[in-house]
Amino acid sequence: MRATYREELAAITSGLEQMAHLAESAVGRATTALLDADLQLAETVISSDDRLDQLQRDLEERALAVLARQQPVATELRTVVTALRISADLERSGDLALNLAKLARRRYPDHAVPSELHATVLEMGHVAQRLMAKAADVIATREVKTALELEGDDDAMDDLHRALFRRLMDDRWQHSVEAAVDVTLAGRFYERFADHAVSVAKRVVYLVTGEHADGLPPDLADPGTT
Amino acid sequence: MRATYREELAAITSGLEQMAHLAESAVGRATTALLDADLQLAETVISSDDRLDQLQRDLEERALAVLARQQPVATELRTVVTALRISADLERSGDLALNLAKLARRRYPDHAVPSELHATVLEMGHVAQRLMAKAADVIATREVKTALELEGDDDAMDDLHRALFRRLMDDRWQHSVEAAVDVTLAGRFYERFADHAVSVAKRVVYLVTGEHADGLPPDLADPGTT
Repeated sequence: MRATYREELAAITSGLEQMAHLAESAVGRATTALLDADLQLAETVISSDDRLDQLQRDLEERALAVLARQQPVATELRTVVTALRISADLERSGDLALNLAKLARRRYPDHAVPSELHATVLEMGHVAQRLMAKAADVIATREVKTALELEGDDDAMDDLHRALFRRLMDDRWQHSVEAAVDVTLAGRFYERFADHAVSVAKRVVYLVTGEHADGLPPDLADPGTT
Repeated sequence: MRATYREELAAITSGLEQMAHLAESAVGRATTALLDADLQLAETVISSDDRLDQLQRDLEERALAVLARQQPVATELRTVVTALRISADLERSGDLALNLAKLARRRYPDHAVPSELHATVLEMGHVAQRLMAKAADVIATREVKTALELEGDDDAMDDLHRALFRRLMDDRWQHSVEAAVDVTLAGRFYERFADHAVSVAKRVVYLVTGEHADGLPPDLADPGTT
């Protein structure tokens, strides 16, 4: 492999890593904005989504250029195509953080999340950040062991999501239907965000081992509890 | 272009068309299952999702084989990469129809959709089917004019989605929080389904014209009202 080719592949990987860190930061800030009803913080998430979109476009152009110029085959070909897929996962994760920030903005100055669900949503935000931080790590290191851990971490998100729904369905739910709608959507956004982080890890596993992490391609990941 | 190469590209296009028709049928059947609380019909949607997933995997393998064997550049390269993206949109659309069918199954023998929202959800199902039928058409014909129509059609979905939320937020909402959660999720699933159909059309426009349908890449499409 020529040096420029290696450099091009390295630049793609580093772009993906950067996108994952932006998504991680966005979901963290969106969670704080949601829980604190902090409009200003919500606006930073909303305006910074452009950056993630721009990175994705750059990465796409770069990947297409590599395909056209270097005509990769075998592993290198799969690396570039996988990078395209991962960038789509990360761009979409950013959109989900954006959706959370928009929820916060729509209810401002009210809180979108009732206080008794504060701890659950905080934890969902933390799990989402942790998953995306690990996904960034997996992109950089290609460590299959770390990648496989993400599925276990995602179980925590599923548990939290179920706990959220139990509270909603509970007869003691005292809040408006509006609040129920907000919490339903927020739960869905966190769950999908986590799914995309897991999908990133699965794609890396497939790239490295040639085998699907759970016998299924990443795209067959269960779409969630819904 | 050699005959086999042309045939390979044609097979990819025809696979995409088939996927779009399956997604269109799935969302139609899921809507009926949801509105009639028809468990058997819901199960057919749930079990037939495998077919869509299998088609996506076949299409991916085929696209990678074309990239490796034919080393396409310029338009052909973009065609193959666009096909990979479109197949991801269509696979995800199938998942969303699956989610709708699972909603129906979870509430069976009850109806997940309160009767006064029946007409709105029916219309959302119809718009979703129409959008996907047009997307299939755009895949086959590459007609930019038809592709550009999808954005207008999607406005109808946004209007319906807003109408659904207005009913939920209405003080006269007489139903359980559980029903509100179901309707919130169903609305979200239809809206995302429509987004993916529009995304397919935008990708074809970009492929044909080299320009983004609305000055933005498909991946920057607004993630919706939520």
